[in-house]
Amino acid sequence: MRKTATTLADGRELIYFDDTEPYTSGAATRELRDRRDLDPVAATSTMRYDVLTGEWVTLASHRNSRTFLPAVAECPLCPTRADRPATEIPAEDYDVVVFENRFPSLARGAEPPATDHVDGDDLWPQRPASGRCEVVCFTSDHDLGFAELPLPRVRTVLAALVDRTRALSALPGIAQVYCFENRGEEIGVTLGHPHGQIYAYPALPPRTEALLRQSRAHHARTGRVLLRDVLDAERRSGRRIVATTEHWTAYVPAAARWPVEVHVAPNRDVADLTELRDPELEDLAALYLDVLGRLDRFFDGVGKLPYIAGWHQAPVEEGRELGRLYLQVFSLMRAPHRMKFLAGSESGMGAWISDTTPEAIAARFRAIAPGPVPS
Amino acid sequence: MRKTATTLADGRELIYFDDTEPYTSGAATRELRDRRDLDPVAATSTMRYDVLTGEWVTLASHRNSRTFLPAVAECPLCPTRADRPATEIPAEDYDVVVFENRFPSLARGAEPPATDHVDGDDLWPQRPASGRCEVVCFTSDHDLGFAELPLPRVRTVLAALVDRTRALSALPGIAQVYCFENRGEEIGVTLGHPHGQIYAYPALPPRTEALLRQSRAHHARTGRVLLRDVLDAERRSGRRIVATTEHWTAYVPAAARWPVEVHVAPNRDVADLTELRDPELEDLAALYLDVLGRLDRFFDGVGKLPYIAGWHQAPVEEGRELGRLYLQVFSLMRAPHRMKFLAGSESGMGAWISDTTPEAIAARFRAIAPGPVPS
Repeated sequence: MRKTATTLADGRELIYFDDTEPYTSGAATRELRDRRDLDPVAATSTMRYDVLTGEWVTLASHRNSRTFLPAVAECPLCPTRADRPATEIPAEDYDVVVFENRFPSLARGAEPPATDHVDGDDLWPQRPASGRCEVVCFTSDHDLGFAELPLPRVRTVLAALVDRTRALSALPGIAQVYCFENRGEEIGVTLGHPHGQIYAYPALPPRTEALLRQSRAHHARTGRVLLRDVLDAERRSGRRIVATTEHWTAYVPAAARWPVEVHVAPNRDVADLTELRDPELEDLAALYLDVLGRLDRFFDGVGKLPYIAGWHQAPVEEGRELGRLYLQVFSLMRAPHRMKFLAGSESGMGAWISDTTPEAIAARFRAIAPGPVPS
Repeated sequence: MRKTATTLADGRELIYFDDTEPYTSGAATRELRDRRDLDPVAATSTMRYDVLTGEWVTLASHRNSRTFLPAVAECPLCPTRADRPATEIPAEDYDVVVFENRFPSLARGAEPPATDHVDGDDLWPQRPASGRCEVVCFTSDHDLGFAELPLPRVRTVLAALVDRTRALSALPGIAQVYCFENRGEEIGVTLGHPHGQIYAYPALPPRTEALLRQSRAHHARTGRVLLRDVLDAERRSGRRIVATTEHWTAYVPAAARWPVEVHVAPNRDVADLTELRDPELEDLAALYLDVLGRLDRFFDGVGKLPYIAGWHQAPVEEGRELGRLYLQVFSLMRAPHRMKFLAGSESGMGAWISDTTPEAIAARFRAIAPGPVPS
């Protein structure tokens, strides 16, 4: 694999991860510079403290004008080719490429708000929404999905996530690095090209805060790491196991809140992607494809399930010793073409109602034979 | 107003709230009994403790087969008339009616699970999802919306919510009563007839737990009630005020996470709907219509905005002294016909990104003149 870094016309970083000879993209970077006339990225995001919940909410009003479902000929994630306007990627082809988001929720150099409290009131602290948002293009082929990538390409994507996790964790002020993919217009994806995202948060997100609170209580009581004990308990029970490999276990969590949900955890204690060894990464690439392939046949008559796949990694500093890597893959589809909506109880009260059971989800996953993705 | 209670064929409670002479529904209940052949409601819901978040998740798998967007002629919330099959309401007409949900997430008499821990493992406590779910029909007119109800009818709906809050709070094992309305297929409403719902939770929902945690910390620090201080601070600032009346204040919260959100709070300290006085209820009915009317013109070209409106009431027992009533009205629409989706950051990490600012939301609300709802 060859890694080549460059910058876009507005100064954003872009990094090619080439896995196939001839290294098309990296080789061409000097000639194929980004010649677009781009305004600098507006880094106007602010985080406000929601005193009713104790959570930080990011306000990124510049994002409301972001690119929305462009025609394929205008896809900003395709390579730049002679017959069409320049895209975000100034190369005629690429394997995997990562670059800073042009419409970032969190931005390096975010301007501090004029005061450190909204209206100067103690109730409402605010701060710049610093951090970083990156886009990861999995392939230059606009029409592929992650589940259809060849195994070596999945390995390259994972290598890119490892690289970015390491680099972003080393930046000052980053609390946690979250690599994720949203797929499907049903969940609001605004660009059809197969891609993922990386958010480097400047503060621990609420779900991590909750996990850390739970992990600390568990550790105080038992002296053990909660996520390790959960994995052991799932393996002991076996009722929600989807698949096991030499290095990984895929299971439906015992209190799954989504209509389709599976967690993939390493058998060895690992804090984040950077600590994985080569055999673990190889094994993961195959299992990831297996899980996504089954997801795409979870419901009869639904070809490609909308899903969210996110890597929960140990925090960079605070709470790192209790963190343990796992991948969460879930869908909001509850029946063929029927989405689970988060209505009054979930959105208003945070009280989740599931229309299925974790054991039923696991049984369905196990019943699906691996195989090619239906088109 | 006349209140008449009866029972449906499967034993569920149904209560008419008649506000208009002749009292059509109540008068007829003896003759118009529910003659359908209904199986008893399946009360199979279970709550499982999600050890990763510390939240209870309700599993209600019987709900996946609930009625889904039936044709108007088969609407189960319309009155029962000679020319069509019997509905949930065994009367030829009604004003407002409340009855127990046939597909309840939480059910009285829910069977305890076989063991009090999933797979007998300490990590995963479980319990019956007891409590109660009720449906509130606002009008017998299938095609009206709440915002189009005549003022006296809004007053009757509020009276019904007061009545039900009092009754459900008195049931054993109820921690909090949540009255809410979901409107719009965009957020998953499965029945088009104008209606709300009431959930009587057997445990404090996560959002209330968070508010209570915040309120306790604020009280320990200041000796004051957090929600009172928030209201005072909003009135002092004025930047996010939408409307004020003699008894109420409508404002956009300083850290609003939804693209459209307004809170409506009583000026007097009130724990829940049952403590409101008549002039406050009268005043509220008019302000509620005003807010919903503005909501329906929030975006140009969007007639009826999908929304969730929920009453946050003080807990029944634990934490009641720090509770304070407010109505939360919000929409997931972020631009005309574009929904805010909860994707990776929100759904996976609980880290909210808003595409607007609370001040912009408030300015838009203020700019909308009250008036009839566009059709």
